[in-house]
Amino acid sequence: MKVVIVGGVAGGASAAARLRRLDENAEILIFERTGYISYANCGLPYYIGGTIEEEEALTLQTPAGFSSRFRIDVRVRHEVTAIFPSKKQVTVKALDTGEVFEESYDKLILAPGARPMRPPIPGIDNGRIFTLRTVEDTLRIRAFAERVLSEKKQNGSAVVVGGGFIGVEMAENLTEFGFAVTLVEKQPQVLDILDSDMASFVHAHLRKNRVSLCLGQAVASFAEENGHVGVKLEDGTVLSSDMVLLAAGVRPDSRLAEEAGLALGAQKSISVNDRMQTSDPDIYAVGDAVEILHRVSGKKALVSLAGPANKEGRIAADNIMGIPSRYVGSAGSSILKVFSMTVASTGLSEKKALAAGYSCESLILSPASHATYYPGGQVMTLKVLFEPATEKILGAEIVGFDGVDKRIDVLATAMQAGLPVSALKDLDLAYAPPYSSAKDPVNMAGFMAENILSGLVRQVPVTALSTLPRDGSIVLLDTRTDAEYARGHAEGFDTHIPLDSLRERLHELEPSKPVYVMCQSGLRSYLACRILSQRGYDCYNVAGGYRLYRSLREDGFDETCRTSCGLSDKVVK
Amino acid sequence: MKVVIVGGVAGGASAAARLRRLDENAEILIFERTGYISYANCGLPYYIGGTIEEEEALTLQTPAGFSSRFRIDVRVRHEVTAIFPSKKQVTVKALDTGEVFEESYDKLILAPGARPMRPPIPGIDNGRIFTLRTVEDTLRIRAFAERVLSEKKQNGSAVVVGGGFIGVEMAENLTEFGFAVTLVEKQPQVLDILDSDMASFVHAHLRKNRVSLCLGQAVASFAEENGHVGVKLEDGTVLSSDMVLLAAGVRPDSRLAEEAGLALGAQKSISVNDRMQTSDPDIYAVGDAVEILHRVSGKKALVSLAGPANKEGRIAADNIMGIPSRYVGSAGSSILKVFSMTVASTGLSEKKALAAGYSCESLILSPASHATYYPGGQVMTLKVLFEPATEKILGAEIVGFDGVDKRIDVLATAMQAGLPVSALKDLDLAYAPPYSSAKDPVNMAGFMAENILSGLVRQVPVTALSTLPRDGSIVLLDTRTDAEYARGHAEGFDTHIPLDSLRERLHELEPSKPVYVMCQSGLRSYLACRILSQRGYDCYNVAGGYRLYRSLREDGFDETCRTSCGLSDKVVK
Repeated sequence: MKVVIVGGVAGGASAAARLRRLDENAEILIFERTGYISYANCGLPYYIGGTIEEEEALTLQTPAGFSSRFRIDVRVRHEVTAIFPSKKQVTVKALDTGEVFEESYDKLILAPGARPMRPPIPGIDNGRIFTLRTVEDTLRIRAFAERVLSEKKQNGSAVVVGGGFIGVEMAENLTEFGFAVTLVEKQPQVLDILDSDMASFVHAHLRKNRVSLCLGQAVASFAEENGHVGVKLEDGTVLSSDMVLLAAGVRPDSRLAEEAGLALGAQKSISVNDRMQTSDPDIYAVGDAVEILHRVSGKKALVSLAGPANKEGRIAADNIMGIPSRYVGSAGSSILKVFSMTVASTGLSEKKALAAGYSCESLILSPASHATYYPGGQVMTLKVLFEPATEKILGAEIVGFDGVDKRIDVLATAMQAGLPVSALKDLDLAYAPPYSSAKDPVNMAGFMAENILSGLVRQVPVTALSTLPRDGSIVLLDTRTDAEYARGHAEGFDTHIPLDSLRERLHELEPSKPVYVMCQSGLRSYLACRILSQRGYDCYNVAGGYRLYRSLREDGFDETCRTSCGLSDKVVK
Repeated sequence: MKVVIVGGVAGGASAAARLRRLDENAEILIFERTGYISYANCGLPYYIGGTIEEEEALTLQTPAGFSSRFRIDVRVRHEVTAIFPSKKQVTVKALDTGEVFEESYDKLILAPGARPMRPPIPGIDNGRIFTLRTVEDTLRIRAFAERVLSEKKQNGSAVVVGGGFIGVEMAENLTEFGFAVTLVEKQPQVLDILDSDMASFVHAHLRKNRVSLCLGQAVASFAEENGHVGVKLEDGTVLSSDMVLLAAGVRPDSRLAEEAGLALGAQKSISVNDRMQTSDPDIYAVGDAVEILHRVSGKKALVSLAGPANKEGRIAADNIMGIPSRYVGSAGSSILKVFSMTVASTGLSEKKALAAGYSCESLILSPASHATYYPGGQVMTLKVLFEPATEKILGAEIVGFDGVDKRIDVLATAMQAGLPVSALKDLDLAYAPPYSSAKDPVNMAGFMAENILSGLVRQVPVTALSTLPRDGSIVLLDTRTDAEYARGHAEGFDTHIPLDSLRERLHELEPSKPVYVMCQSGLRSYLACRILSQRGYDCYNVAGGYRLYRSLREDGFDETCRTSCGLSDKVVK
């Protein structure tokens, strides 16, 4: 058995190692276009920023080490230029010598990854514009950045185009390295794994860390300017910058597959079955180049993440060696560090769930990462999406600091296991004060879901406040303390009764008018709603509270944005 | 509706608040024996150690605050001394005035908690011996400790009797406060949530932090000694100490229930159904005093933890108010901080699973908390127990530093959701280098389980090495590097071939002899086993590797201990 693997990073290297573990006698060849295999793909931005100090740390697995451990023929700087499925051959070009040769295979695994997009913007070939994909790109960017800073006595500036994972990570790392960074994103928010309400917290944190944001702005052109590059936005603004990092998304690197006549999926991704087999049964494909099953939507999706790539590589190897492993798909679980903040999501966002036609209910809470009496706890904002009729968990988003990674993985696990949303309340999770609360944030989400589903509380999203009538027909009630209210309150929330005196001051509320209740996070307003609804008031909890309201306001969120951001504005009755 | 609640800490306070949220009109009374309600029970040791600096932090919820928010009649320093189910009355004693009165109820909730055990050891009433249960105990211990340290110019010493949660947490906190601490535990290990192999890492960490351990030693007597207390152990050793913290376990505080004729369970716990109802349908009971369902074993169990107590309180309230909530039970998930270490478990340990009659397979791995190329990752040891025939996850134990809490909660969630152990490999968890690896430790456990279940690898526990014949009929092979091997190797592992030269040096291994292969953590030895078994060798991976071997050796683990510790010594064939 001779297996040829095209691409030796995440999926390709995983496949190779698993193949060898399953079969000592197989002939295994890896052709990798760059000079490195199995490198720390997701760590590249952190080498540029300096968190990862040693270049060697990025390339822990050397071709020689990988070869000797797994007896695999690793050829770096070798590019496969064509596949001939009928002959079961590939054409390979040795990039250093220019030599071209044919290599036969019994089974072929394509792990070519995805390429950074380079939109056809005028001036995009400027030498100060970089994309980040490989170790070589990383070293080039780092060297250029060092030169800029040494020439400019530390006053370097950079523009990052694109607010996805790489864009945001690079905005952070270029800032850490010493640049004044502006991030340009054509959508009104960064990180489309989040809904716009959650993204507002990220925007505030980026700004706090001196990253300028140009949201809802596309780049019109790049121009060389006297030792700078001028980034002209569609509104005419020109950002003059020492360098540009283009992180405008990736696209499956499927040229080889396409030319070989393999079936393609969305965005010219490589189409595979759940054994990672392409339309040619002797050719498998894994990683960022393939279209996989989304575990929540049940539809095909492109998921450019390392976790799926590694799993897929192992599954391709299993199937080649006769083990009928199947890939169950990805839930799109992802996480990233944004300075001291952690942002994570799993499944579908509200926007994506609504767009996919789901009836989607959301809950939002602001729990502490651990018991508040134990030092170091930090507030996170946690949003959970579910389908009310089935209680199916559709997704979750968390923005916070400590403990975000834990809760997203617990929610991802519960969702993938098919637990109904109200079962989150029953999860017996490990509690001690340094780690959690006796009612963990995930349990709290379950309690809230149960209360919503059972009709114990009705809610209205903060993002829909502007749709409420302001003609005196409803009461907008703030139940925070006097001090909190005095520091600021939401527009129109002119009725202020602190929760703890609500029962005594009920006469101030007309029983005939619906009451919309806000507090800081949604907990005290929930308690107020319980008091009011038992007394016959038609009342609604403002989900997310003043905390979310203020974050959205400071972020410039307005009614236009609400509509365009695709969130539900329905009041749950 | 009038509800009387006996005990206002975790379960009682949760029940009261939920009752009010469900019914504005109910009359709700809490009688709490101590001076505090809803206090930070699990935080008490940390106030003694000084991590929690303010007494107020322990008692965030004051009786007055709780009353005004929930309109609940909170009577602290009131002890319920008798229940008369036929009259639906309780007798209450006001501890400050001595006044005794009757109070009627429609529904009664018992949340009396558990009392620290005070074994009948001679001299146990010495004034230097303390137990920790309440805020008052905490303040008393803290004041005494301060006095000792000020009198003794910082040279204070303390003995902690008992190595459970409270004993270990108090050993840490008395050390942090400035005491030289000796921990006495009559079992050969601390923390019986762990198997003895895992506990060895905790022992090393306690010793590293200057806690002296007397394991397998019971206290024979206490004696007053000239301003000290002498703690005499059964082997005759006398530990002379300024103070003793007795943490020898807890027992359900069920006297009231017993005297009222309510049905009792194990250890005189209060017997309840899944609605938290006792044998008297108008009396509910919650918290440490009750016997609940263990979600893994399916049997009744005593689980003295805050998470279950809080959930139970809410469920009792639901049922009283006509909502048919049911408690699904506890998986015993627990976690604690041991200086900089984190120790966590869920479900059954191997010892308990074997004792309960399960056919139990284990896997053990030593993954990094996050990608090794990103700074700050720390190794954890992760043990997963499962039933091979059904793939049911029986439990997990983790000892490590960063990221332990996340993995135990993911495993707890997967276990409670009923995922088979091999499905852990499919979990799509959120990965970025600061948080995890592309193959998360939980995924790795799934891969290992699959390899064991499919027969791809056979293993032998480190704890069973001494049962192997040492007559030359087998080969004990160490596959670590020369440098690692030179620094130390396991007894009898005289054949040393580094993994990366194994294929070339196969002729050194007699094909007729079974080979037992060890490396540092079990990964390289697994790779070696794959090489060997494909060449016809009968070979076994030593699970846990030299890392676990050395930890056990340094901990004094020997064959006697192996037998007594109840672990499996079977070789998986």
